[in-house]
Amino acid sequence: MPNTVKAILTSFRGKRELLHYYIAGLVDGEGSFSVAVIRHPSQTFGWMINPCFQVYQHEAHREILELCQWVFKTGSIYRKSGTNHVLNFSIDARRNLLEKVIPFFDRYPLIVKRDAYKSFRTITKAMEQGEHQTREGFCRLVTLAFTMNQQGKGRKHTLEYILESVKSAHGESSETLRRTPQGRG
Amino acid sequence: MPNTVKAILTSFRGKRELLHYYIAGLVDGEGSFSVAVIRHPSQTFGWMINPCFQVYQHEAHREILELCQWVFKTGSIYRKSGTNHVLNFSIDARRNLLEKVIPFFDRYPLIVKRDAYKSFRTITKAMEQGEHQTREGFCRLVTLAFTMNQQGKGRKHTLEYILESVKSAHGESSETLRRTPQGRG
Repeated sequence: MPNTVKAILTSFRGKRELLHYYIAGLVDGEGSFSVAVIRHPSQTFGWMINPCFQVYQHEAHREILELCQWVFKTGSIYRKSGTNHVLNFSIDARRNLLEKVIPFFDRYPLIVKRDAYKSFRTITKAMEQGEHQTREGFCRLVTLAFTMNQQGKGRKHTLEYILESVKSAHGESSETLRRTPQGRG
Repeated sequence: MPNTVKAILTSFRGKRELLHYYIAGLVDGEGSFSVAVIRHPSQTFGWMINPCFQVYQHEAHREILELCQWVFKTGSIYRKSGTNHVLNFSIDARRNLLEKVIPFFDRYPLIVKRDAYKSFRTITKAMEQGEHQTREGFCRLVTLAFTMNQQGKGRKHTLEYILESVKSAHGESSETLRRTPQGRG
């Protein structure tokens, strides 16, 4: 008999806290906290910082991703590009990360992905403060992103390349604005 | 700061039940319930059925496998053959499976690996009853093992080959003995 979210939730009735610890364990196994740095000409420095929380699962167990959707009250499920049978549960809207994902993992702590989560949290919260809109802040966050998940292994661009590119970009930023001499602002 | 089992256990002090739900989630992500069928000339029918519970983890997070060792009060950790950085926590002694692993997952239920665990449990308990010592029982358990984890995909031998081999083996078994006509037993 295939498992359903309804059946799972029934088995966890009255045990919400226990379900959340189960989810923390599952995420420590199959989850990912990543911060992509993507070329994006219309963004301030030509790059976009994109924190994303994901859980992978073979399509045979879609119910587990639906369970994540139920627990986090948000997130989309789609087929991972380039793979046939792997589904991806994903949350990347900053509001949802700040209001749903981060409070959850502050309360139900991770072990394996503890450090990646810590950097992910720092970056997402700093972006909420607009830190990525200053050149210095942008570089700090990108550098931190590159310390996560095997030190930038598998990334398309090197950290040096991105930092160099950001330094030479003409991006407007609050920092740039602050430095503009009076009378020209 | 690297995480240690001691630090993890401190954070779970007084919350043993929650730790166990975390472990169930982790196992649903990174664990495996497998039943190998291995050529073994000295065994009754020339094959050995070998149930094994495992958890994999990158060597950077050995602490999580040590945590499993602490939770199950048994199991060994070793480097997975053929891989450089993956460690393997493994329990395959039948006594430990029956007394430690099965009672744990009967109490802290799995979602993703529910069906694999169910077959694993049936096979391990049936072996404890000696079912694999009859030709018929042996074939039933091997057939059940082949329904687990992607229907025997990645196995060295096909189910048909093993069953054929078992049928033609000269293995002594309780079934054979029972069928021996009186006077010749």
